[in-house]
Amino acid sequence: MGLVVQKFGGTSVADPERIREVADHVARTRRRGDQVVVVVSAMGKETDELLHLASQVSKTRPGREMDMLITAGERKATALLCMALHDLGVPADSFTGSQAGFITDTNHMNAKIVEVRAERVREAVDAGRVPVVGGAQGVSSNRDVTFLGRGGSDTTAVALAEALDGVCELYTDVSGVFTTDPRVVPVARRINRISFDEMLEMCAAGCPKPAMRAVEFARTHRVPLHVRSAFTWEPGTWIIEEEPDMEQAIVSGVIGDASEAKITLAGVPDQPGVAAKVFRALASAGVNVDMIVQNVSEAGITDISFTVPSEDLPTSVAITEGLASDIGANGVTSDASIAKVSLVGAGMKSHPGVAATVFETLAANDINIEMISTSAIRISCVVAGEQCDRAVTVLHSAFGLDDLTR
Amino acid sequence: MGLVVQKFGGTSVADPERIREVADHVARTRRRGDQVVVVVSAMGKETDELLHLASQVSKTRPGREMDMLITAGERKATALLCMALHDLGVPADSFTGSQAGFITDTNHMNAKIVEVRAERVREAVDAGRVPVVGGAQGVSSNRDVTFLGRGGSDTTAVALAEALDGVCELYTDVSGVFTTDPRVVPVARRINRISFDEMLEMCAAGCPKPAMRAVEFARTHRVPLHVRSAFTWEPGTWIIEEEPDMEQAIVSGVIGDASEAKITLAGVPDQPGVAAKVFRALASAGVNVDMIVQNVSEAGITDISFTVPSEDLPTSVAITEGLASDIGANGVTSDASIAKVSLVGAGMKSHPGVAATVFETLAANDINIEMISTSAIRISCVVAGEQCDRAVTVLHSAFGLDDLTR
Repeated sequence: MGLVVQKFGGTSVADPERIREVADHVARTRRRGDQVVVVVSAMGKETDELLHLASQVSKTRPGREMDMLITAGERKATALLCMALHDLGVPADSFTGSQAGFITDTNHMNAKIVEVRAERVREAVDAGRVPVVGGAQGVSSNRDVTFLGRGGSDTTAVALAEALDGVCELYTDVSGVFTTDPRVVPVARRINRISFDEMLEMCAAGCPKPAMRAVEFARTHRVPLHVRSAFTWEPGTWIIEEEPDMEQAIVSGVIGDASEAKITLAGVPDQPGVAAKVFRALASAGVNVDMIVQNVSEAGITDISFTVPSEDLPTSVAITEGLASDIGANGVTSDASIAKVSLVGAGMKSHPGVAATVFETLAANDINIEMISTSAIRISCVVAGEQCDRAVTVLHSAFGLDDLTR
Repeated sequence: MGLVVQKFGGTSVADPERIREVADHVARTRRRGDQVVVVVSAMGKETDELLHLASQVSKTRPGREMDMLITAGERKATALLCMALHDLGVPADSFTGSQAGFITDTNHMNAKIVEVRAERVREAVDAGRVPVVGGAQGVSSNRDVTFLGRGGSDTTAVALAEALDGVCELYTDVSGVFTTDPRVVPVARRINRISFDEMLEMCAAGCPKPAMRAVEFARTHRVPLHVRSAFTWEPGTWIIEEEPDMEQAIVSGVIGDASEAKITLAGVPDQPGVAAKVFRALASAGVNVDMIVQNVSEAGITDISFTVPSEDLPTSVAITEGLASDIGANGVTSDASIAKVSLVGAGMKSHPGVAATVFETLAANDINIEMISTSAIRISCVVAGEQCDRAVTVLHSAFGLDDLTR
């Protein structure tokens, strides 16, 4: 008998029928002899609807009140799921983040977990009950309700699994983590096992699920994660520590990400402190810069290119243009229609030539590479936005990821 | 400068525009120099929608989970109203019932307030902020979320006014308490001042607003209540302690109530303990019996008639029939289509002949009286359901309540 934390996302509990199906699954898990703790997100698109409601009411939307508003969504879902469990004869108790002992900092809309005092949840489990905890919420040291941010339910589940010494299952609307987006490449395969490090790189490369923050937490605390479907209930992808005998795929996945834009600062004097000035200014404005590339200089002059989230492009261009003359640069150009294509694989470390194959494959398909950045287990290339899907498709095939058996 | 607790009902905060209007009014009150504490109900029909959602998910619907679900409605309204206040430059903080210090018993769906620890609300007021508290909610001694029941927001507001030593304004979709329902009798007048005792009798007679429980609490703790409109913002009805110089209307109001049904137990032996058996059994089944009439017996045999809420009629008939042979009664009859017409007025105590005028007026209009019950300041008659509106109209006129000046 083990303890399993099962987290169900918004689509998994989108309507009364889905809530009853989730209750069935929890009841089945319990009959198998496992202790179950459940974490739920708000039903369907409720979080978006609450955000829309707030925008209709207010222009200022202070964080404390946004958190009070948004967390109402998970609260409803926890109560409804408990009712459905009671109908099946499974004793269950809903808990808000505060009741479940999630103490956070006071950073509203994006609070960080400071401590999980899971005694009350533990007592419920020990009493043979199923605690159902509202995802992505807590209470701050100021005794205010806090929201952990979008995707925070995954983090709630992992943190509870850590506190209760259990495994963590993340139920979602896909059946696991895929070698690439199956909507783009229909022959994409589901990955059965992947290491924390690879999953983190895939998250950073733009893989939308699971939430990167939850993977980071799971890696730090060595909590095994199982990403799986709340619709087919089939086994999905295990995210675990790398084992010595774990087969290391050269490339585990290919991710295309069209959510960023590129800025180039041309003709920059190659002097210490120039780059720091630009990126400090961007960081102060809350812009999350992703890739940064600076070429070797010719005659003491260089170009700096970097990518930022598309929604931050206007701000970033304004900041960069404001600094251009100050640092003696020639000018600023930007491109909103780029895409980042990334390959992730732990086996890259021991297989030279992966980068060469990437460049050859793209060149053979007339796809120009605008920027390159690499880590030990990842290669990312910026290409023109309209070539993203084709780049992903040809790389997926070139590294033998197409599942030709189905 | 005084402290005023302003409570806004569901229709008052039904949509974003209404929420902004309420915020405007709170800001205006504050500019006049008053300290304001706000209590809000859930937006529009949200509580009904949540109840419907629960009925779609579950048959059992345990009380603890229903309370967790329903209180999400007020939570949203508090946060949205605070945002609208922030937009107007009014610092405001939302509080759940728990955060506002409402400690209740563990009776879910209908919890009673045990204590109000209003320190946090008081601190906010002292800091120049407007606390916005979720109505009808608290936290039990078991640390579970509790709901005070329908109409509980009025009670929240009165309890806060008591704890903070302020007055209480109940904003609603009518402009006060009327001499009768203006939809039935268009010449009905708004009552400017009414005593707690009269208001309680009017509530008991079927006057839907304000909630009887809130009036009881206000009477016990001598909290002045002002029932008024959140649409026209005009002054409404003050519910206050009876003052020696207060003009006592013979009849303050006439109330028709078609929500009850009548049961008659015929041919009952007139022996001690017979009535007790019937009403103990009904009480055990949770049936709230209202009027009870037993005539003097003829030859040791009597009839007992009583009224119950219409929705409890089938249960009540079954219980009564089950006991009929046991207590030696002849049989049970019931009538679902009755109405109770009540007159309330503190002046009745000192004006004999009110009952006679009631009976004469109804008789002159061919309205038959099926049951009569009286208190010191109230007379209630049961009549046929279809004669309810006419009975209210002729009595309203007979006691000079028609406002012929408008």
